Amino acid sequence: MNGAECLLRTLLANGVDLCLMNPGTSEMQFVSALDRVPAMRGVLCLQESVCAGAADGYARITGRPAATLLHLGPGLANALSNFHNARKARSSIVNIVGEHSTQHLRYDAPLTADVEAFARPVSAWVRTLDDPLNMGAAAAEAVRESLRPPGGVASFIIPADHSWSESGEPGPSIASEPRRLTNPARISACSSILASGEPAAVLLGGSATSRRSIEAAARLGVPVFLNRYAACVPRGRKWSFARRVSYFPEHAEVLLAGIKHLILVEAEAPVSFFGYPGRRSTVAPEDCTLHVLATQQEDGCAALEALCGDAAFPPESTSPVMPEDGPLTPESLGAVLAALLPEGAIVSDEMVSCGEPINRALEHAAEHDLLPVTGGSIGQGLPVALGAALAAPHRKVISLEADGSAMYSLQALWTMARERLDVITVILNNRRYRILDIEMQRTGAGPVGPKAEEMIDISRPALDWLYLAAGLGVPATRATTAAEFAAQFRSALNASGPHLIEAVL
Amino acid sequence: MNGAECLLRTLLANGVDLCLMNPGTSEMQFVSALDRVPAMRGVLCLQESVCAGAADGYARITGRPAATLLHLGPGLANALSNFHNARKARSSIVNIVGEHSTQHLRYDAPLTADVEAFARPVSAWVRTLDDPLNMGAAAAEAVRESLRPPGGVASFIIPADHSWSESGEPGPSIASEPRRLTNPARISACSSILASGEPAAVLLGGSATSRRSIEAAARLGVPVFLNRYAACVPRGRKWSFARRVSYFPEHAEVLLAGIKHLILVEAEAPVSFFGYPGRRSTVAPEDCTLHVLATQQEDGCAALEALCGDAAFPPESTSPVMPEDGPLTPESLGAVLAALLPEGAIVSDEMVSCGEPINRALEHAAEHDLLPVTGGSIGQGLPVALGAALAAPHRKVISLEADGSAMYSLQALWTMARERLDVITVILNNRRYRILDIEMQRTGAGPVGPKAEEMIDISRPALDWLYLAAGLGVPATRATTAAEFAAQFRSALNASGPHLIEAVL
Repeated sequence: MNGAECLLRTLLANGVDLCLMNPGTSEMQFVSALDRVPAMRGVLCLQESVCAGAADGYARITGRPAATLLHLGPGLANALSNFHNARKARSSIVNIVGEHSTQHLRYDAPLTADVEAFARPVSAWVRTLDDPLNMGAAAAEAVRESLRPPGGVASFIIPADHSWSESGEPGPSIASEPRRLTNPARISACSSILASGEPAAVLLGGSATSRRSIEAAARLGVPVFLNRYAACVPRGRKWSFARRVSYFPEHAEVLLAGIKHLILVEAEAPVSFFGYPGRRSTVAPEDCTLHVLATQQEDGCAALEALCGDAAFPPESTSPVMPEDGPLTPESLGAVLAALLPEGAIVSDEMVSCGEPINRALEHAAEHDLLPVTGGSIGQGLPVALGAALAAPHRKVISLEADGSAMYSLQALWTMARERLDVITVILNNRRYRILDIEMQRTGAGPVGPKAEEMIDISRPALDWLYLAAGLGVPATRATTAAEFAAQFRSALNASGPHLIEAVL
Repeated sequence: MNGAECLLRTLLANGVDLCLMNPGTSEMQFVSALDRVPAMRGVLCLQESVCAGAADGYARITGRPAATLLHLGPGLANALSNFHNARKARSSIVNIVGEHSTQHLRYDAPLTADVEAFARPVSAWVRTLDDPLNMGAAAAEAVRESLRPPGGVASFIIPADHSWSESGEPGPSIASEPRRLTNPARISACSSILASGEPAAVLLGGSATSRRSIEAAARLGVPVFLNRYAACVPRGRKWSFARRVSYFPEHAEVLLAGIKHLILVEAEAPVSFFGYPGRRSTVAPEDCTLHVLATQQEDGCAALEALCGDAAFPPESTSPVMPEDGPLTPESLGAVLAALLPEGAIVSDEMVSCGEPINRALEHAAEHDLLPVTGGSIGQGLPVALGAALAAPHRKVISLEADGSAMYSLQALWTMARERLDVITVILNNRRYRILDIEMQRTGAGPVGPKAEEMIDISRPALDWLYLAAGLGVPATRATTAAEFAAQFRSALNASGPHLIEAVL
């Protein structure tokens, strides 16, 4: 068989059966091989940032890698911002990038670029295939490296001639390396701290934001905090006791005030999103000691369970109340969402300035999974929702999107329509990069003059999301009151396939 | 003054008065400084690939750099594919990238990335500002380096605290280095070749595709070829004698057949866009000797003029004929364009599979400037048209776009509407990545099976360009016959501001 078919068969043998792609000439053999390898699902995206973000969303839900198939350096370049987010999410992704054929590369043709250099800043592993006979082994290695704890992007660059040459048999199925157990001395040390009675708390990140990990943490009887930028966190009233660290440092400082010992479980020390004049970057109290229970590479859940807590599970927060009709605001929209969100839903959050009140409301919703911003690269929300829907076709996916952010990767809507995925996209349309109003002040750059205003206001021309959605094949409605939003959201939940609601705020 | 204001004033002092931007928190000081530096024009784009492509288009028309202002590593990442095209176009661009404040960088906050590593593969020069007091000198250096022949992207990375700190006075106005004169021995050698009577031709690239250069080349009395991927080439019936090297290598080989000496003027040896099985990458005859008259860094125009040719200027091609009404095809659409294109128009070409017949028709049009694909990174056409319109507000800009390609950076339409630019965008809608049908066969990967078909067909759902344009604030019409297209194109030429025509092929 040729190299392309060998690649697909090796990916399948290693559990990778979804490929998000935007192929070009150098990847034609892989496209052709799809018809000879029926178990590999190919999903087309109209811009590579969608491929990368969707693979990120898929990994966050399944814990397994999808593949991306991208066209040379420039195709990879378009995907880098969402690979940045995937890297911060520690998502496993097998990123296949086509390269010019080996004999063509020396000629500096238009598309020639330094593909490895593009790949390195976002990848845990980068390899350019040197010989088609190594295809099977290298492809298996790519899967294994993507899964190596804590998980990452494995970029596998394949010259075109290696895809059309004879490659021999597919590579082996390789077991992925498990997470290491944490050193018992760390467990003892943390156990002593918890026994000391001094104010302590745990901060969970990485795979330790799983339900089982949070349950074990809850039994320790100390406050449980979650890395705000974790890949996937259970939310809703059952899990509201586990608090996400706040976005703004002054809020995070209030949240963490008084804690003398912060136990880190697959989490780094909490820091501010941005640095600001005259403010420190870390948000834990200055006299707080940090203790690592489990590193990013270790098994945080096992370590938490080894602490053998026996405190009672914290009580649920109150049930949500459907709001009266009234103006559509982040608060009323959040209340409607909380009242209607079905159990088991997946929420992709790129709400930016509207996020705080809506996330607060969702603390009263039925149990669901939240996919937060991880790397802060705008344009994550829609692609991550797409990938989550591919991963969990029987769950409702709700994509909560700021209007400005949605514009970075709106092409994702087309693939949702093409694959008939159950994604409800809510565009929070305030016609403004609202967060920048806040950040202008915080960075000491304000007040906003008329020319600065032009860089923040996006109302001229107004983006019309009904038209944009229709152009991309997604049915859409517009809500301007809480009751309209409730009716439209309820109707979308009862339908199948994608729907977009433009929420005019 | 603070660093941000110092930067803007230094850019202005060095002739840079346009900044294409998508700023974030780390760039707020620059946004604020716009109000204190009125001569600097800020233009907002909704995705960074639009900023980069627009700066490329601006440089191709003016020969001067615009600035881009991007938000940290991820903002830069989104711009890389169009910076790749700009690099291949040898366009001068001053690329300002914000970075976390120096004290925040060590904490690996979500947006932290290796900004320099992202910048290097596309940049001729990369510098991270180390001290706010060096702002003025470094900004002037960035402009100079962007202009250093042959021109390139100068990436200047500025930690946020250096923008809000005191920086001292703006930097100096620095003269840019002129192109070097070519070695007289090379001129003598080429002169001898031309005198020998052996079959010879010249291939022009870089700045040597200017009118003056082509005129000098025409007087040599040998065939004149243009690098297909040059940044800007004059076209229309006056210039049709200067042939662009063909896209497909077998066509290029026919074009160049019989030539024994190819004189390269700011051009590299012509090569195939892609490598194919069993086909060589170079397209000049195997027995053809290549002679460098001027390198990329040298003054090709002066070198051509030094050859002192005295042949008659070649005759014009025939005038175009408006076609009868009939189905809209690339051929009939090209004929309409050729008949109606106003003298002095600028054409941005990202037509892909429709390009050949339309470009052939435009050889009979009035004199105009063509901005070709340079680096092959898809998503160039609309942003380059935007930048050209910013550079030349009194000229009509025609953006000829494949439907698949337009989807990569459709956000450019919004900025065209916002800035009320005279850009007519023609979407060549064949609902297919048609070029891949051809490339499947050429790479030996065909025939196209049903799963491969799914990666090439983009008709499900159909992209509706009237809705997409309306969503982005651009008036649009749809043409399905040659007469409809002619009426709509004529009407758009007579109007001001942007217009989009969806040409259903």
